[in-house]
Amino acid sequence: MSHQVLIYSRFPKAQMLRIGERYDLLDGKGKPPIETFSAEQLKPIRAMITAGGQAIPPAVLDSLPSLGAIICYGTGYDGVDFAETKKRNIAVGHSPAANAASVADLAVTLMLATTRRLLPADDYVRSGGWSGAQPSPSMRPGPGMTGRKVGVYGMGEIGRKIAARCAAFETDVAYYSRSRHDVPYAYYPSLEALAEWADILMVAVRAGADTQHAVNADILKKLGPHGTVVNISRGSVIDQNALVAALKSNAIAGAGLDVYEKEPHAPDALTKLPNVVLTPHIGGHTIESHIAMQDCVMANLDAFFAGKPLRYPVG
Amino acid sequence: MSHQVLIYSRFPKAQMLRIGERYDLLDGKGKPPIETFSAEQLKPIRAMITAGGQAIPPAVLDSLPSLGAIICYGTGYDGVDFAETKKRNIAVGHSPAANAASVADLAVTLMLATTRRLLPADDYVRSGGWSGAQPSPSMRPGPGMTGRKVGVYGMGEIGRKIAARCAAFETDVAYYSRSRHDVPYAYYPSLEALAEWADILMVAVRAGADTQHAVNADILKKLGPHGTVVNISRGSVIDQNALVAALKSNAIAGAGLDVYEKEPHAPDALTKLPNVVLTPHIGGHTIESHIAMQDCVMANLDAFFAGKPLRYPVG
Repeated sequence: MSHQVLIYSRFPKAQMLRIGERYDLLDGKGKPPIETFSAEQLKPIRAMITAGGQAIPPAVLDSLPSLGAIICYGTGYDGVDFAETKKRNIAVGHSPAANAASVADLAVTLMLATTRRLLPADDYVRSGGWSGAQPSPSMRPGPGMTGRKVGVYGMGEIGRKIAARCAAFETDVAYYSRSRHDVPYAYYPSLEALAEWADILMVAVRAGADTQHAVNADILKKLGPHGTVVNISRGSVIDQNALVAALKSNAIAGAGLDVYEKEPHAPDALTKLPNVVLTPHIGGHTIESHIAMQDCVMANLDAFFAGKPLRYPVG
Repeated sequence: MSHQVLIYSRFPKAQMLRIGERYDLLDGKGKPPIETFSAEQLKPIRAMITAGGQAIPPAVLDSLPSLGAIICYGTGYDGVDFAETKKRNIAVGHSPAANAASVADLAVTLMLATTRRLLPADDYVRSGGWSGAQPSPSMRPGPGMTGRKVGVYGMGEIGRKIAARCAAFETDVAYYSRSRHDVPYAYYPSLEALAEWADILMVAVRAGADTQHAVNADILKKLGPHGTVVNISRGSVIDQNALVAALKSNAIAGAGLDVYEKEPHAPDALTKLPNVVLTPHIGGHTIESHIAMQDCVMANLDAFFAGKPLRYPVG
């Protein structure tokens, strides 16, 4: 008989198909497991799969007394309370780098679509504005990529891939990260200094208490009226209210966002703006990326149930 | 007194401001000059500025008996009838490479936006589909860029820049061009062979009689149901009816288009499709690109009126 694994977050069925061929999955569909399953059913569960960003309160861990492994589908693990997992001797695994290329690709897609005002451009063609030669302020030429200053915040696997892609557009790339890395980009010692220098800020830092609202009104102001911010990390890194205010007052020019403070909700204040491009957290959402993440999840589960250390432990 | 120069195509005023500081411009606003100016006014005109893609019929040249130079704003010169200009001893100049980075950037923007289905994704967020967890077939994961086969058709300045950008996305890049170039990409000896190999076809070839409808139903079929075509060259290179049919029947997956057969018109058959991204011929439409093109136009005009060969002659 195959081992039982709890699915904690809400995942599309297709993403669990391959894992389900190897493990007996109990799908909690994003709700507290005790609402879907009996205490009796949860008692023997030793491993669970989570989306990484969804908080796992102590009460959930209390309902899973045999839990020994939390496996995050994706790179992030900001929903995990490590004080609790340590105390309970629960191993935490994730899918490092599995989605990095896909996420970096989307970051650049958002950057280009925002700076080239792709959505108003497409609308201008489809609505007949172009054929009717209607004046359109949003169709005025803006700055292109050549020589543009792109600041990458965070220099992990995704940050590196974003930097490499941006450099191919003949831009000037620099970064800020807690520590210097062996990369061919200028290092700025603070986010403030990076934002002061940059035209475009690419947020690729790992989410956590230390990066909560790191991109605030002050940082956005430093980017300036031609500035653009792109976030493919986590919504928590940007003060979303400050971002809306900056976009409304043209303190910055635009934003490309794949992540939000309260997913799956992008507030009306954001969705009503013309100078943003919004995607529904699809950074890692490509066929190859999902397969790679599923491979990581299975490698972690296989190791755990074989009594070995996780294949891709967090940390 | 500054020299008189006729503006043949319809240009936004802002694009002619700097040129107007040096030359006395007569703006024909895209209409046959004789409709706007008297034969007497046109008689002494020695130079004109055109958008390059707009046809210049012999009757127009007949109305300009002193014309000695046609200066194209941009890279293209497909509207020029070289048999006529040769016969009349008219020099033809353009703005080579001035907009190449900007056009290549837009090509990649269209490629990424089409393959990552950016428009449906943005709509899914704005319309509340995401927060309502509404099923959406267009939000299913598709293939990403990693390992994707990108075929570049044409290896001029723009084609090279497209290839370099695409390579940064960890893709496999190859090309077809009339002749081999010293570039680090595989060469395919025909457009058929390139399309057979490629997932994504980037059209960057110079427009002309020899490339008219080069991308036809057969080429599109070879790209296949996961195929994407991007065109930032000229609308004439693609058989637009065949493209609409291929998009409707899912013979290919999507298209990103900046150019159309009859500009400024994108037919309803295209604008009603969900699997296309459409921009209003804005490839070269960035601040830096316009300045570079204006510099080329002025360098050409300056040389011409000084009795020297054009600074950037065609050919």
